Amino acid sequence: MPTRRLITGFSNPTVKALRALREKKHRKASGKFLAEGLRLLTDARASGHLPEVLVMATGRDPHPLLDVLEADVHAAGGEVLELAPDLLGKITGKDNPQAVAAVFAEFDTSLAALDRSPAKIWLVAQALRDPGNLGTMLRTGDAVGAGGLILIDDCADPFSVEAVRASMGAVFTQKIAQARWEEFLPWLRSGPGQLVAASLRDAVDYRAAPYAAPCFLLVGNESRGLPEEYELACDLRVTLPMKGRADSLNAAVAGAVLAYEALAHLD
Amino acid sequence: MPTRRLITGFSNPTVKALRALREKKHRKASGKFLAEGLRLLTDARASGHLPEVLVMATGRDPHPLLDVLEADVHAAGGEVLELAPDLLGKITGKDNPQAVAAVFAEFDTSLAALDRSPAKIWLVAQALRDPGNLGTMLRTGDAVGAGGLILIDDCADPFSVEAVRASMGAVFTQKIAQARWEEFLPWLRSGPGQLVAASLRDAVDYRAAPYAAPCFLLVGNESRGLPEEYELACDLRVTLPMKGRADSLNAAVAGAVLAYEALAHLD
Repeated sequence: MPTRRLITGFSNPTVKALRALREKKHRKASGKFLAEGLRLLTDARASGHLPEVLVMATGRDPHPLLDVLEADVHAAGGEVLELAPDLLGKITGKDNPQAVAAVFAEFDTSLAALDRSPAKIWLVAQALRDPGNLGTMLRTGDAVGAGGLILIDDCADPFSVEAVRASMGAVFTQKIAQARWEEFLPWLRSGPGQLVAASLRDAVDYRAAPYAAPCFLLVGNESRGLPEEYELACDLRVTLPMKGRADSLNAAVAGAVLAYEALAHLD
Repeated sequence: MPTRRLITGFSNPTVKALRALREKKHRKASGKFLAEGLRLLTDARASGHLPEVLVMATGRDPHPLLDVLEADVHAAGGEVLELAPDLLGKITGKDNPQAVAAVFAEFDTSLAALDRSPAKIWLVAQALRDPGNLGTMLRTGDAVGAGGLILIDDCADPFSVEAVRASMGAVFTQKIAQARWEEFLPWLRSGPGQLVAASLRDAVDYRAAPYAAPCFLLVGNESRGLPEEYELACDLRVTLPMKGRADSLNAAVAGAVLAYEALAHLD
């Protein structure tokens, strides 16, 4: 088996470079991002994504899936590092880091690269600011068999540690695209697609709505919801019961309730 | 109008005492918790909860709802403080603090105090560790007209700043109870109630399940799900479609999809 490189010391330049990937500017400069956990890295591998760098904690429990992963990374010309658990924690920002983390190249997230044909459901989020919500939407998308998540306007970074973690691996199985509204709408209208918004405006009951594939489910910003003009550009506005004092749901929750409803109609 | 007390300086003992409420041990020692934001405090007031201490940032924009709130706090014998926005940020832990925060007495969360009769749906979470998920479940409970959230075993603190924030005020409108499983199950069986778990085991399709009120929807820990014996103690096990690689949803998402489904059957 090829060599693992053992790294010691917080000031090691490799540790610093890995740790820097927790910040967006360093991710964008390098085109790389961090993911952690054997389960997630195994899902990535099964989806055709091998890391450029595999980082393992010293003193970890051995695991056959990790052996397979390590062999594949070596075979693909990647690098394998070993470092103490506290150093790994510095990189991932967790007090109790998982025993393994990895560096991946960011994917192409241009809308032009997106093929809408393989899936009946797509999730679309506008100005979604919370990386946990973003990751949760990816995870929900995987669960309902959606094609992916389209991020409109200024959203959280899908390659942030928090989003990748919350996605539970779905960052590797769901397609991700990023676009301004001005790009998204012409792209959507250039092919088949029903754009659906959760709305209180001129909306039909979400249980009885005529969902049609490919169905693009649009949720808005956590604080402000969707801009009026975006709602009005939708083919269908649906409303969810709100029985209490609040007039909205958490964005990832709203997307999930809609996605499961659409699935029941379209599957 | 009675006096507002102006506070300056990070080392002021009142600032220190308020800031300490961000930690669980200080909340439990004092029996108090923090909430922030005019919208949330107005919802609290409408639900019959007035703060013991109202804390306003100097230089805030005036607002009629804040005037009403301040008058009510004075009338109820509470205290009104003014401090600089950066001091308020130290208390709430936010870089961009909202212009108002408040201290409330924690509620009675004993199961014995819970009356199940007013609602058809109750959410139940077991070993829920993430305060954001907890707050999101409270928010969803408000939306579906649930009675409240019952927290089983060791859950995140519903009075943490993160949970209160994610609840968007539902911490004041939903009942909250905390109990061990060994207490919960006899309590549940002492009256009417259907216990429903999301499960992969011997489960029926969640869309076609025979939900019955009062319906207690149980979700498990974020990493481990529900213990087998808890699932087996349920009256109904329902399964949600999982079309992708993942075998589970975010706990708050699973609770929300189930809660909206139960609402459609029971409303």
